[in-house]
Amino acid sequence: MKYGIAIFPSKAVQDEANSYRKRYDPHYALIPPHITLKEAFEADEQTVHEFVTELKHIANDTEPFTVNIRKVSTFAPVTNTIYLKVEPKQELIDLFEKMNRGKLPGNQEFAFVPHITIAQKLSTEEYSDVYGSLKMKNFDLEDKVDRFQLLYQLDNGSWTVHDSFVFGKEKV
Amino acid sequence: MKYGIAIFPSKAVQDEANSYRKRYDPHYALIPPHITLKEAFEADEQTVHEFVTELKHIANDTEPFTVNIRKVSTFAPVTNTIYLKVEPKQELIDLFEKMNRGKLPGNQEFAFVPHITIAQKLSTEEYSDVYGSLKMKNFDLEDKVDRFQLLYQLDNGSWTVHDSFVFGKEKV
Repeated sequence: MKYGIAIFPSKAVQDEANSYRKRYDPHYALIPPHITLKEAFEADEQTVHEFVTELKHIANDTEPFTVNIRKVSTFAPVTNTIYLKVEPKQELIDLFEKMNRGKLPGNQEFAFVPHITIAQKLSTEEYSDVYGSLKMKNFDLEDKVDRFQLLYQLDNGSWTVHDSFVFGKEKV
Repeated sequence: MKYGIAIFPSKAVQDEANSYRKRYDPHYALIPPHITLKEAFEADEQTVHEFVTELKHIANDTEPFTVNIRKVSTFAPVTNTIYLKVEPKQELIDLFEKMNRGKLPGNQEFAFVPHITIAQKLSTEEYSDVYGSLKMKNFDLEDKVDRFQLLYQLDNGSWTVHDSFVFGKEKV
């Protein structure tokens, strides 16, 4: 089964992201707006059981922190994904790094660019239009991060939450 | 904000349910296949914070149990919803009843019929076709229930998980 780890921002930020995703992101219906902490990895149930314990420790060792979003950015020319850029706060980077340590699989292939995807798999023209109109826009979103979620993928590509991990609140 | 409480069955059961939902359920993209434990209710963040504590107590007082699905059924003629009928095990009924007690809002208007919706809002003709072909089918699904989830609804109607509550594992 395929698992992944993500942070869901507040309803306000999710609603804002969805106003774009609805039109520009074919993954709109597969998962709520999110910050990926750990890319999809394969694991069986027994292994995930061990990961859950590890993730509880990580959650308990993390203090709630705030993140800010002030603009969109893009992964172009690698892919024409457009995203809400989450400013790379140290606490967020620390959390990301913990997701590849200990028993957890070290499957991270790219540098961590914290983001909430709002558009992907657009044609070149669509991309230029959308990015052109969004790149000048200022956002002023602030969000408290106090948990992350372990999800698994269904056959249809959608993701279901397996466990939530609230900072400082997990029983190990 | 609108909240609700649900059990997500295993991936196997969700995949089975989605094979029907994809064609017959307009809520397919809004939430994974689920057993509703508590219908949508309004609450502010502070109140939900108190509910979370209550829900942790409920989770800690509940032992994992199995549920079985052997056939589909329908809410017709009230609505033409078709669902996988979850056999009403005592542990499940007990859990449902706890969802309307204590600090939790008593918003339950109907008798508890544990189910996983697979078709709804069909035309009368579609309903007859789908139910006609599914009502003779035998299912043999068994699932372990060891957690439930508190969800909140976004402006687009989709649901995001706020917290998972694992039986016997919550820190209060």
